[in-house]
Amino acid sequence: MLTSELSEAEVSALRVDKERLAEDLHHSCQWGSGIRWGDESTDTGMQRLALSEEDKSVRNWFIQTMKDLKCDITVDEMGNIFAVRPGRRRDAPATFIGSHLDTQPTGGRYDGILGVLSGVEALKRMDEMGLETEGGVGVVNWTNEEGARFPVSMISSGVWAECIPLSKAHDLKEVPTVASLPTAASAPETMKSALKKIGYLGSVPCSYKSTPMAAHFELHIEQGPHLVSAGQRVGVVTAVQAYRWFRLNIIGRDTHTGTTAFEHRADALYAFARMMVRAREVAAGRGCLASVGIIEAKPGSVNTVPGEVSFSLDIRGPETELVAEVEEELRRDFDEIAAAEGAGIGKPCRVEWTLDFDSPAVKFHDNCIECVQQSAHAVVADASVADTKSLVRPIMSGAGHDSVFTSKRVPTSMIFVPCKDGLSHHPEEFCSADDCATGASVILQAVVRYDRKRFT
Amino acid sequence: MLTSELSEAEVSALRVDKERLAEDLHHSCQWGSGIRWGDESTDTGMQRLALSEEDKSVRNWFIQTMKDLKCDITVDEMGNIFAVRPGRRRDAPATFIGSHLDTQPTGGRYDGILGVLSGVEALKRMDEMGLETEGGVGVVNWTNEEGARFPVSMISSGVWAECIPLSKAHDLKEVPTVASLPTAASAPETMKSALKKIGYLGSVPCSYKSTPMAAHFELHIEQGPHLVSAGQRVGVVTAVQAYRWFRLNIIGRDTHTGTTAFEHRADALYAFARMMVRAREVAAGRGCLASVGIIEAKPGSVNTVPGEVSFSLDIRGPETELVAEVEEELRRDFDEIAAAEGAGIGKPCRVEWTLDFDSPAVKFHDNCIECVQQSAHAVVADASVADTKSLVRPIMSGAGHDSVFTSKRVPTSMIFVPCKDGLSHHPEEFCSADDCATGASVILQAVVRYDRKRFT
Ligand SMILES: NC(=O)NCCC(=O)O
Ligand SMILES: NC(=O)NCCC(=O)O
Repeated sequence: MLTSELSEAEVSALRVDKERLAEDLHHSCQWGSGIRWGDESTDTGMQRLALSEEDKSVRNWFIQTMKDLKCDITVDEMGNIFAVRPGRRRDAPATFIGSHLDTQPTGGRYDGILGVLSGVEALKRMDEMGLETEGGVGVVNWTNEEGARFPVSMISSGVWAECIPLSKAHDLKEVPTVASLPTAASAPETMKSALKKIGYLGSVPCSYKSTPMAAHFELHIEQGPHLVSAGQRVGVVTAVQAYRWFRLNIIGRDTHTGTTAFEHRADALYAFARMMVRAREVAAGRGCLASVGIIEAKPGSVNTVPGEVSFSLDIRGPETELVAEVEEELRRDFDEIAAAEGAGIGKPCRVEWTLDFDSPAVKFHDNCIECVQQSAHAVVADASVADTKSLVRPIMSGAGHDSVFTSKRVPTSMIFVPCKDGLSHHPEEFCSADDCATGASVILQAVVRYDRKRFT
Repeated sequence: MLTSELSEAEVSALRVDKERLAEDLHHSCQWGSGIRWGDESTDTGMQRLALSEEDKSVRNWFIQTMKDLKCDITVDEMGNIFAVRPGRRRDAPATFIGSHLDTQPTGGRYDGILGVLSGVEALKRMDEMGLETEGGVGVVNWTNEEGARFPVSMISSGVWAECIPLSKAHDLKEVPTVASLPTAASAPETMKSALKKIGYLGSVPCSYKSTPMAAHFELHIEQGPHLVSAGQRVGVVTAVQAYRWFRLNIIGRDTHTGTTAFEHRADALYAFARMMVRAREVAAGRGCLASVGIIEAKPGSVNTVPGEVSFSLDIRGPETELVAEVEEELRRDFDEIAAAEGAGIGKPCRVEWTLDFDSPAVKFHDNCIECVQQSAHAVVADASVADTKSLVRPIMSGAGHDSVFTSKRVPTSMIFVPCKDGLSHHPEEFCSADDCATGASVILQAVVRYDRKRFT
């Protein structure tokens, strides 16, 4: 059977196998199971940092699974894994379902993992139906989407889109919190050394030119509270908010905690504390977010006032311009705070900013959004409520996703499903098997619809 | 010649050898030289953490030097090294000059080191003069005075005074900042394992009963601005301010930085920032100090709101009661700040306090203070100013010293000399060779005076 031969009703009836999806998903979580929070065997979080030994194991499993589905495998220079189930037209690029298998250090079982596993399940379903597509259908696992180990999120889809230079990505060092894990190497790894170490430094150039796509669809948990608190089932993601990641350094002066009056200090940590309080005020005033996830104070002794503090700053907002405004205001305010601390001794603190990552706001592609929207309505039609359409909502993503970068080169959109309490980047992150299956059925249909659309 | 046979004028004329003192002091700083800040060979700071390889080397040198001066050596269970030059009365305990050879991670060449080296020089001077004392005269190097590697300051004089249990000290773990140094062992060392590792786990019980003293004198740089800004030469230390060291834990909730509104956060690091700002306000309001030297935020990822923060808090004040008041007020305020963060989601942060170290305010012994005062006036009489007595001032110590603990068991007092800009716990900490020699001459005379006094 060929996708183009299906009736509209047949497409709308496509569903994944809920049990198999759940089974495969939790099977893949055996590598890197994290903090336990409940009694069920699957009641744990995940700690599968990018390019760790656990990441290697799940990658090996992913490749074997896709080979069993007769997919062609490509591994590129960033360790991105592309698995393609060929379509009838061998020369046309495949439509991809993509996301990531890496997690936060205290992450959950759904962020990213659901996206890749929905792709696996979609291909299993097509395979057992004997469904043939016009173009191929692929599943891609992007490397280090989280930016948790190597502090640039979506870096490997960024290189693929030729928005981030390969050398910058290869040279990127892991963050100190990871470098200090007991299992860490003595010197911090770079992405390149880590790729080599686990055998995933592929030889195919990491570029949309070498591994082209027709389109990119991504299923993800919302990671926020909107769907779950409105009792809605599917989010049709139309856009992604803007964000910028900075590394800041405050330089003050080490001195004795017991003998140095406050007026005689250039306390880099005190300056930090004031900056963090200010950052929330300024961001909130513009409907944006500002967050610090990493902090290091030196020299790190109870009775020495820290003379140096470095920290990460993550600013987000619905418009690129708003993020720029928050940044501008904070640059001014932080300078002021730094100048005040140590002024009494003529040795004010200084603050230095480094921009690590800049992701402007993104709008997804109308064709893809339409495929997702139609599919979402078709899938939620199963629900026993009067107005099933109200179960679907258009939504903006607060988090970044690899779809941000694929959207720069190919038609892209995303599907959100609700997660408990809107909680993510936490071991208790949870998405029910029903919601996982709903999302996977939507992406299955969306890919089929896109395949039908692209050749007519 | 016997101390009791000297005239008052002969005692007042005693001086150390300035050049030899400077030479020995900088010679001993070859082990653990730290950050360079100037061109001279001695223009570096020190990084000689307690019980490190560098500490081992300087200890070996110290013991050999004292053996060459015909001293008897005792090493106790805390690695304290007692070197005694016997006096005429073999059964009487010695009068000690003591301080420490360990430093801060970014420390200088004078804090502690000057105190021990002034003892070495005093004994060299006595030796070359052929001066015999009634009781013995000793030099003691106390282990881990700084509390920088093992986060309880003066811990080994504390065990000696039987104010801190040996087992607590032996089990104390090094701080994470040290444990993460490239040279660190894979698991954090305890004091006991570190003592064993460098061969300084002695067999003599660490107690004032096993290694008794007649008195304890300590020379130290002021580490604060009073002497230097008043152009004074010697501080006669009459008292030490109170301090308490705490470890605090804030427990919030990990969550996504991009998708979690401020009202939905229990951001442990944001709570910390508010607490640190508050701590300065409260302490300043009572003429006290409050400082944070160590901070750790978990999980340590740019895009995860930290769900756990731990930090050190050092509260000091001139009266024990004032420190208790600051603590009490901060306990209330920190609870309030924690409760507010996460209240919106019914998951407020919690804050837990652990008291690591409590050092009430101390008054030194009148007899010792008198010896120091007389000696100080005698030594500064060399100066070419009209009122040489104005060069000496009574002073309270802002920092803790091993003398705090010796004062619990034996007559004790201290001598301060000025240091540049009042700066300490910093590589550029500096005390001129003149000021070092002035202090060492004062301690030499003070010990001789005490020896004369104790047997009349
Ligand atoms: N979805 C997700 O958590 N991506 C990580 C990048 C980000 O911080 O938004
Ligand atoms: N003198 C000195 O720095 N001692 C360390 C103990 C303290 O923090 O006061």
